[in-house]
Amino acid sequence: MSRGPRQRDASSRLVVLNGAPAGKGVVWLVGAGPGDPDLLTVKALRLLQSADVVVHDRLTPQPILDLASSAARLIDVGKRKSRHTLPQEDINRLLVALALEGLNVVRLKGGDPFLFGRGGEEMLACREAGVEVHVVPGVSAALAASADIGAPLTHRGLAQAVTFVTGHAAGDADPDLDWAALARPNQTVAIYMGLTTASRIAGRLIAAGRAPTTPVAIVESASLSHERRRVSTLAELEATVADLDGPALLIVGEVAALADVAGLAGDSGASADESFIREFKS
Amino acid sequence: MSRGPRQRDASSRLVVLNGAPAGKGVVWLVGAGPGDPDLLTVKALRLLQSADVVVHDRLTPQPILDLASSAARLIDVGKRKSRHTLPQEDINRLLVALALEGLNVVRLKGGDPFLFGRGGEEMLACREAGVEVHVVPGVSAALAASADIGAPLTHRGLAQAVTFVTGHAAGDADPDLDWAALARPNQTVAIYMGLTTASRIAGRLIAAGRAPTTPVAIVESASLSHERRRVSTLAELEATVADLDGPALLIVGEVAALADVAGLAGDSGASADESFIREFKS
Repeated sequence: MSRGPRQRDASSRLVVLNGAPAGKGVVWLVGAGPGDPDLLTVKALRLLQSADVVVHDRLTPQPILDLASSAARLIDVGKRKSRHTLPQEDINRLLVALALEGLNVVRLKGGDPFLFGRGGEEMLACREAGVEVHVVPGVSAALAASADIGAPLTHRGLAQAVTFVTGHAAGDADPDLDWAALARPNQTVAIYMGLTTASRIAGRLIAAGRAPTTPVAIVESASLSHERRRVSTLAELEATVADLDGPALLIVGEVAALADVAGLAGDSGASADESFIREFKS
Repeated sequence: MSRGPRQRDASSRLVVLNGAPAGKGVVWLVGAGPGDPDLLTVKALRLLQSADVVVHDRLTPQPILDLASSAARLIDVGKRKSRHTLPQEDINRLLVALALEGLNVVRLKGGDPFLFGRGGEEMLACREAGVEVHVVPGVSAALAASADIGAPLTHRGLAQAVTFVTGHAAGDADPDLDWAALARPNQTVAIYMGLTTASRIAGRLIAAGRAPTTPVAIVESASLSHERRRVSTLAELEATVADLDGPALLIVGEVAALADVAGLAGDSGASADESFIREFKS
């Protein structure tokens, strides 16, 4: 569950503290952003570099984990090999236990901790245990997807509001959403984890009255080097996403018509390295 | 309109380039986050440090502007003294003109450029002029407000969706929103620029059926040292915000009941300095 050798490394922070960490620990629920390490906040980067222990999910990109202090213990609570993610209650208990040991705990959450991140449950568990807990916001995936494909979430005359929902559904059920509200024109719907239910989402929105020609922008693995982007319509969404299989964000609404179709030829926009080079060339 | 002396400084980037900037310029629409420089992304920080020119609004905090390269020209397009903000069309023209001069232009937008930032209009102006434009997402104010007051935007059993709207309204009109949709329970409404219309928003939501006891969390100047936080209900919102006058975010919904009332005594949570000290103390 952890980088084995590191936690007992003679040079680690714990040993420097003579095995008796001073005072109570703290839990930081930290938004890791969409995946590109360049989209971490400065604060998230600093906290990673000073953490005693970093608790992360399976999908956290390695380049982000590599930014943690070499003395930090890394704990993956969603290991692929164990075939299941640690139940949320166990994660809550783990965070509390680590803090009660006096450790400075960074709990990395993809995107933002309080937007589909279950960060609220972890915060409450800490509060109930009397553990100091802070939340550091992050760039949520919808913002990165919108930026990369060039389709604003709000835009004068096209969308005055945007609703963030999750496309996740239990079993074969449709996602439990307010379809009538989401079907109204001139507003944007940003759908997290909507790939597997994309055809049902499109069907329900059309049935509720949203025009079948409503444009949809699709961004898979937003901000990463293997990002893929598509533009479609509600009517054609199922066919458009048929070959996608990574984490994806759907942006449904008139704003999606502004997506940069010329930029859809496969490049991933300005990745960390490209932008770094560009900056120092100019 | 700019830091006068700097733009002609003999040591500036432009002079290094012998007055003939190489190639075409680029416009970066960069999310500056909620205000705390610690909540800039690493990418935003790098771009600021390498910009030839930084175009910003009146509300951009000075500590963020101070991170720009000393050779950069700073242009304030919302100067207080001129009593009005530069019209959006003029800003669009300015960005294009600067890029066509071959400059590396950073257009700083509060929060995220594509969420109530009018970044879409600036992007389109660049595209129409054939100017290369990239968008760098940022931490939007609602995410910072939610993090600081300890009220998640989504939470199991309380809110499966969150809608971002603006409370801004023309003249004495009510904001033009879908009140019936926003009035349904078990969803969060994050309202930007909702302070002056707070009482009308609360009245419309109650009239449309949302319970008067629905909790509301209010965060003024999220992430800054003078941040102020309140918790109220729709029925009591008007009285609660009567003495607030800065930019504020309203979080309406059952999740606001999770706000950390114990933490409302006036401290601003982990400011940049405090968190920095905490990190290196532990």
